[in-house]
Amino acid sequence: MRIDVVTIFPEYLEPLNVSLVGKARARGRLDIHLHHLRDWTTDVHRTVDDTPYGGGPGMVMKPEPWGAALDAVLERGAEELAGRGLGEGAVPTLVVPTPSGRPFTQELAQRLAAEPWLAFAPARYEGIDRRVIEEAADRMPVVEASIGDYVLAGGEVAVLVMVEAVARLLPGVLGNAESHRDDSFAAGAMADLLEGPVYTKPAEWRGRAVPEVLLSGNHGLIARWRREQAFRRTLAMRPDLVGRWEKAAFDKHDRKALDALGVTWDEACGRFRPEPGGVEE
Amino acid sequence: MRIDVVTIFPEYLEPLNVSLVGKARARGRLDIHLHHLRDWTTDVHRTVDDTPYGGGPGMVMKPEPWGAALDAVLERGAEELAGRGLGEGAVPTLVVPTPSGRPFTQELAQRLAAEPWLAFAPARYEGIDRRVIEEAADRMPVVEASIGDYVLAGGEVAVLVMVEAVARLLPGVLGNAESHRDDSFAAGAMADLLEGPVYTKPAEWRGRAVPEVLLSGNHGLIARWRREQAFRRTLAMRPDLVGRWEKAAFDKHDRKALDALGVTWDEACGRFRPEPGGVEE
Repeated sequence: MRIDVVTIFPEYLEPLNVSLVGKARARGRLDIHLHHLRDWTTDVHRTVDDTPYGGGPGMVMKPEPWGAALDAVLERGAEELAGRGLGEGAVPTLVVPTPSGRPFTQELAQRLAAEPWLAFAPARYEGIDRRVIEEAADRMPVVEASIGDYVLAGGEVAVLVMVEAVARLLPGVLGNAESHRDDSFAAGAMADLLEGPVYTKPAEWRGRAVPEVLLSGNHGLIARWRREQAFRRTLAMRPDLVGRWEKAAFDKHDRKALDALGVTWDEACGRFRPEPGGVEE
Repeated sequence: MRIDVVTIFPEYLEPLNVSLVGKARARGRLDIHLHHLRDWTTDVHRTVDDTPYGGGPGMVMKPEPWGAALDAVLERGAEELAGRGLGEGAVPTLVVPTPSGRPFTQELAQRLAAEPWLAFAPARYEGIDRRVIEEAADRMPVVEASIGDYVLAGGEVAVLVMVEAVARLLPGVLGNAESHRDDSFAAGAMADLLEGPVYTKPAEWRGRAVPEVLLSGNHGLIARWRREQAFRRTLAMRPDLVGRWEKAAFDKHDRKALDALGVTWDEACGRFRPEPGGVEE
């Protein structure tokens, strides 16, 4: 996968040389190119921002440097991919991290992991002039995505998040010590459920014992215990996920465990509802 | 604010020297201490993980190094704060980034920004042995938080996200070019609304004009246009937020705009509902 990032803080992206992403680059699974947005400014101050039309606080990123930078990224990347025989006229999927984007989810990470070429446009200040995004969308697929409901100083750390989430899904990147089978947010049986607690040796540590069932060797019992722990954890930490649960995803053991936790099926609204008081973990 | 981070990848946290967080450190607003978890291992291989009790894929972080590392962080930090006359017997709030935590939101960032001392415990692999968290909770406040519904290779990038979100809320850290008045996710009029598009000079770029209303100088009209754009954007990108809107937050102009966008008040469920087909941006 080829990745281009245009930013005013390339040094922020140093972690792309570390750990899983760094190894994927070293192995040739990821080909990452960083570009300094200011290289496409034309004034002596290398200005990338100006005041917003219509007034208001903060600054907006100017369209000209972004337009020129995206032109160059498209041209160089397409040439390089064509030179390696990877298709004429390729375009990247442009990913714009922004708090007003669609949620960056595991599903979106999976979709992006299937692309051969991603370009990232992390903004600073109040964001990029809207016309840049609209003009880019005429030339390539654009995904505006938000990594969460909080405000950052800029999009660079969101790029780190997204590249890491995507990179670990690429074939051959994840080692044996990691795994994505039982991940929170994986599709399948664990959809919209958080993982419960995990334990390793020693069996007793600072007077605290590992739950007995985990030492029982009874895989059926262990699986059921883990599922009930996942219900409890989700109710305690993410009652918002309960409304997304689908009736068909829960068997009769599950429904009994949910009943005991006060979770009921609301026929009128067509969704599960947690008990008003909530669940203690 | 003092911040301690215990990690097996201290080099991942280099961006804490860059941009807003780097400046806050240089100005003495943030005092960040990085610790290598492997410094608290006792075997020749400096092992931090082992297989999970009860079976399953992946590895779990062992309790002993984490327990010893947190002991040391508590002791050194408390000594140092006491030495500077900042209170005897202080403890940090321990923040554990984990996909099975409560959502890290702007509200949580604000709460953490009011603390004098935070310690972060980013995990790798399948997570940290549960007993570490339980034992820590007997000694200090513990917040397990998730930055979003996706899976990362480790908690380090989540620490970068959280520290950046918290740092920009500290008094004196944010410059004039940035601002938090109209941020997406700010409390008040913009609660659960995404920001609409922003524009700056030139008025025309690559054949695309800035919306006329923004050049009108009519602040009432501009404010109403921006609010309608925020409704549109939220409906297009985050229909999940509509269910959180409170009836009282919308005046008669808003309700008219919402009506036109097909958003109706569902009396039975006590919430707004977007039109089933959704809204095009």
